[in-house]
Amino acid sequence: MRSDCPISAVLDIFGDKWTLLVVRDIVINQRHKFNEFAAMGEGIPTNILADRLKRLVEYGIVEKRPYQQRPTRYEYHLTRKGEDLIPIIHDMIRWGLKHVPGTGASKGY
Amino acid sequence: MRSDCPISAVLDIFGDKWTLLVVRDIVINQRHKFNEFAAMGEGIPTNILADRLKRLVEYGIVEKRPYQQRPTRYEYHLTRKGEDLIPIIHDMIRWGLKHVPGTGASKGY
Repeated sequence: MRSDCPISAVLDIFGDKWTLLVVRDIVINQRHKFNEFAAMGEGIPTNILADRLKRLVEYGIVEKRPYQQRPTRYEYHLTRKGEDLIPIIHDMIRWGLKHVPGTGASKGY
Repeated sequence: MRSDCPISAVLDIFGDKWTLLVVRDIVINQRHKFNEFAAMGEGIPTNILADRLKRLVEYGIVEKRPYQQRPTRYEYHLTRKGEDLIPIIHDMIRWGLKHVPGTGASKGY
Protein backbone atom coordinates (compact mmCIF):
# COMPACT_ATOMS: atom_id res chain seq x y z
CA MET A 1 0.00 0.00 0.00
CA ARG A 2 1.25 3.50 -0.81
CA SER A 3 1.57 5.89 2.10
CA ASP A 4 2.55 9.53 2.25
CA CYS A 5 5.49 8.70 4.51
CA PRO A 6 8.70 10.05 2.93
CA ILE A 7 10.74 7.11 4.21
CA SER A 8 8.32 4.68 2.64
CA ALA A 9 8.58 6.63 -0.64
CA VAL A 10 12.38 6.44 -0.55
CA LEU A 11 12.21 2.71 0.11
CA ASP A 12 9.82 2.28 -2.83
CA ILE A 13 12.65 3.63 -4.99
CA PHE A 14 15.52 1.87 -3.24
CA GLY A 15 13.57 -1.22 -2.39
CA ASP A 16 16.32 -3.50 -3.54
CA LYS A 17 19.99 -3.61 -2.89
CA TRP A 18 21.15 -3.26 -6.49
CA THR A 19 19.69 0.18 -7.09
CA LEU A 20 21.65 1.77 -4.28
CA LEU A 21 24.81 -0.20 -5.13
CA VAL A 22 24.78 1.43 -8.58
CA VAL A 23 24.49 4.86 -6.92
CA ARG A 24 27.35 3.87 -4.62
CA ASP A 25 29.50 2.96 -7.63
CA ILE A 26 28.89 6.40 -9.15
CA VAL A 27 29.48 8.30 -5.89
CA ILE A 28 32.31 6.37 -4.30
CA ASN A 29 34.01 4.44 -7.09
CA GLN A 30 33.66 6.97 -9.92
CA ARG A 31 32.16 4.37 -12.20
CA HIS A 32 29.95 5.72 -14.97
CA LYS A 33 29.79 3.08 -17.70
CA PHE A 34 27.64 -0.03 -17.96
CA ASN A 35 30.64 -2.36 -18.09
CA GLU A 36 32.15 -0.69 -15.03
CA PHE A 37 28.98 -1.25 -13.00
CA ALA A 38 28.79 -4.82 -14.31
CA ALA A 39 32.25 -5.43 -12.81
CA MET A 40 31.23 -4.49 -9.24
CA GLY A 41 32.39 -6.92 -6.59
CA GLU A 42 28.86 -7.96 -5.67
CA GLY A 43 28.33 -9.52 -9.11
CA ILE A 44 25.22 -7.77 -10.40
CA PRO A 45 23.53 -9.73 -13.25
CA THR A 46 23.57 -7.60 -16.42
CA ASN A 47 19.81 -7.85 -16.99
CA ILE A 48 19.20 -6.50 -13.48
CA LEU A 49 21.81 -3.77 -14.02
CA ALA A 50 20.08 -2.67 -17.25
CA ASP A 51 16.73 -2.56 -15.46
CA ARG A 52 18.02 -0.61 -12.46
CA LEU A 53 19.81 1.96 -14.65
CA LYS A 54 16.62 2.44 -16.63
CA ARG A 55 14.64 2.97 -13.43
CA LEU A 56 17.22 5.40 -12.01
CA VAL A 57 16.93 7.47 -15.20
CA GLU A 58 13.11 7.35 -14.99
CA TYR A 59 13.25 8.51 -11.35
CA GLY A 60 15.44 11.44 -12.39
CA ILE A 61 18.25 10.31 -10.09
CA VAL A 62 20.68 9.43 -12.89
CA GLU A 63 21.07 10.92 -16.37
CA LYS A 64 22.60 9.41 -19.51
CA ARG A 65 25.31 11.34 -21.32
CA PRO A 66 26.59 10.14 -24.72
CA TYR A 67 30.36 9.78 -24.76
CA GLN A 68 30.77 7.99 -28.10
CA GLN A 69 29.00 7.93 -31.48
CA ARG A 70 28.52 4.98 -33.88
CA PRO A 71 27.47 3.17 -31.89
CA THR A 72 26.22 5.69 -29.37
CA ARG A 73 27.37 4.79 -25.90
CA TYR A 74 26.36 6.44 -22.66
CA GLU A 75 27.81 7.31 -19.32
CA TYR A 76 25.58 7.55 -16.25
CA HIS A 77 25.90 10.53 -13.93
CA LEU A 78 23.93 11.71 -10.90
CA THR A 79 21.45 14.52 -11.38
CA ARG A 80 21.03 17.17 -8.67
CA LYS A 81 18.33 14.95 -7.15
CA GLY A 82 20.77 12.06 -7.18
CA GLU A 83 23.52 14.14 -5.61
CA ASP A 84 21.20 14.77 -2.67
CA LEU A 85 21.53 11.04 -1.91
CA ILE A 86 25.24 11.42 -1.15
CA PRO A 87 24.75 12.21 2.58
CA ILE A 88 22.68 9.03 2.94
CA ILE A 89 25.44 7.01 1.27
CA HIS A 90 28.04 8.47 3.63
CA ASP A 91 25.83 7.82 6.69
CA MET A 92 25.50 4.19 5.58
CA ILE A 93 29.27 3.90 5.18
CA ARG A 94 29.79 5.25 8.68
CA TRP A 95 27.22 2.89 10.16
CA GLY A 96 28.61 -0.14 8.30
CA LEU A 97 32.21 0.60 9.26
CA LYS A 98 31.25 1.04 12.91
CA HIS A 99 28.85 -1.86 13.30
CA VAL A 100 29.52 -4.55 10.71
CA PRO A 101 32.79 -6.41 11.36
CA GLY A 102 35.02 -6.95 8.35
CA THR A 103 33.78 -4.04 6.26
CA GLY A 104 36.09 -1.47 4.77
CA ALA A 105 39.21 -3.62 4.98
CA SER A 106 40.28 -3.11 1.38
CA LYS A 107 38.70 0.28 0.83
CA GLY A 108 40.05 3.72 1.41
CA TYR A 109 37.20 4.92 3.64
CA MET B 1 28.40 -12.32 -3.40
CA ARG B 2 29.61 -10.85 -0.12
CA SER B 3 31.93 -7.88 -0.37
CA ASP B 4 33.74 -5.89 2.30
CA CYS B 5 31.95 -2.72 1.19
CA PRO B 6 30.18 -1.19 4.21
CA ILE B 7 27.27 0.01 2.06
CA SER B 8 26.78 -3.46 0.70
CA ALA B 9 26.84 -4.80 4.27
CA VAL B 10 24.19 -2.31 5.35
CA LEU B 11 22.04 -3.26 2.35
CA ASP B 12 22.39 -6.94 3.26
CA ILE B 13 20.67 -6.04 6.54
CA PHE B 14 18.15 -3.57 5.14
CA GLY B 15 17.68 -5.37 1.87
CA ASP B 16 13.96 -5.08 2.02
CA LYS B 17 11.63 -2.25 2.73
CA TRP B 18 9.89 -3.78 5.75
CA THR B 19 12.96 -3.95 7.95
CA LEU B 20 13.61 -0.24 7.78
CA LEU B 21 9.90 0.61 8.08
CA VAL B 22 9.87 -1.15 11.46
CA VAL B 23 12.88 0.94 12.54
CA ARG B 24 11.05 4.03 11.27
CA ASP B 25 8.03 3.14 13.39
CA ILE B 26 10.20 2.90 16.50
CA VAL B 27 12.13 6.12 15.79
CA ILE B 28 9.47 8.39 14.36
CA ASN B 29 6.14 6.99 15.51
CA GLN B 30 7.12 5.74 18.98
CA ARG B 31 5.66 2.34 18.27
CA HIS B 32 7.13 -0.52 20.30
CA LYS B 33 4.61 -3.34 20.32
CA PHE B 34 3.91 -6.02 17.71
CA ASN B 35 0.30 -4.90 17.24
CA GLU B 36 1.38 -1.29 16.80
CA PHE B 37 3.81 -2.23 14.02
CA ALA B 38 1.15 -4.46 12.46
CA ALA B 39 -1.10 -1.38 12.19
CA MET B 40 1.39 0.64 10.10
CA GLY B 41 -0.16 2.35 7.08
CA GLU B 42 1.84 0.26 4.61
CA GLY B 43 0.05 -2.91 5.70
CA ILE B 44 2.87 -5.25 6.72
CA PRO B 45 1.80 -8.91 6.76
CA THR B 46 2.13 -10.28 10.31
CA ASN B 47 4.31 -13.23 9.27
CA ILE B 48 6.75 -10.82 7.63
CA LEU B 49 6.63 -8.53 10.67
CA ALA B 50 7.47 -11.43 12.99
CA ASP B 51 10.39 -12.43 10.76
CA ARG B 52 11.81 -8.91 10.47
CA LEU B 53 11.58 -8.29 14.24
CA LYS B 54 13.41 -11.57 14.84
CA ARG B 55 16.14 -10.56 12.40
CA LEU B 56 16.47 -7.07 13.90
CA VAL B 57 16.99 -8.68 17.33
CA GLU B 58 19.55 -11.12 15.87
CA TYR B 59 21.41 -8.21 14.24
CA GLY B 60 21.56 -6.43 17.61
CA ILE B 61 19.65 -3.44 16.23
CA VAL B 62 16.53 -3.98 18.34
CA GLU B 63 16.10 -5.53 21.80
CA LYS B 64 13.05 -7.13 23.38
CA ARG B 65 11.89 -5.87 26.77
CA PRO B 66 9.14 -7.70 28.66
CA TYR B 67 6.35 -5.36 29.72
CA GLN B 68 3.79 -7.92 30.89
CA GLN B 69 3.83 -11.37 32.55
CA ARG B 70 1.41 -14.32 32.01
CA PRO B 71 1.57 -14.30 29.14
CA THR B 72 4.91 -12.57 28.71
CA ARG B 73 4.68 -9.81 26.13
CA TYR B 74 7.51 -7.76 24.76
CA GLU B 75 8.21 -4.26 23.56
CA TYR B 76 10.88 -3.63 20.93
CA HIS B 77 13.39 -0.84 21.47
CA LEU B 78 16.49 0.26 19.59
CA THR B 79 19.87 -0.72 20.96
CA ARG B 80 22.79 1.70 20.75
CA LYS B 81 23.65 0.16 17.38
CA GLY B 82 20.07 0.78 16.28
CA GLU B 83 20.12 4.35 17.51
CA ASP B 84 23.06 4.99 15.19
CA LEU B 85 20.62 4.44 12.32
CA ILE B 86 18.61 7.53 13.30
CA PRO B 87 20.70 9.97 11.15
CA ILE B 88 20.10 7.72 8.12
CA ILE B 89 16.34 7.76 8.79
CA HIS B 90 16.36 11.56 9.03
CA ASP B 91 18.40 11.91 5.84
CA MET B 92 15.86 9.70 4.06
CA ILE B 93 12.99 11.83 5.36
CA ARG B 94 14.69 14.98 4.09
CA TRP B 95 15.34 13.45 0.67
CA GLY B 96 11.80 12.09 0.35
CA LEU B 97 10.17 15.37 1.38
CA LYS B 98 12.31 17.30 -1.07
CA HIS B 99 12.15 14.99 -4.05
CA VAL B 100 9.04 12.78 -3.91
CA PRO B 101 5.83 14.74 -4.51
CA GLY B 102 2.99 14.03 -2.13
CA THR B 103 5.03 12.82 0.82
CA GLY B 104 4.70 14.26 4.28
CA ALA B 105 1.25 15.74 3.71
CA SER B 106 -0.33 14.22 6.79
CA LYS B 107 2.78 14.01 8.92
CA GLY B 108 4.35 16.50 11.24
CA TYR B 109 7.80 16.48 9.62
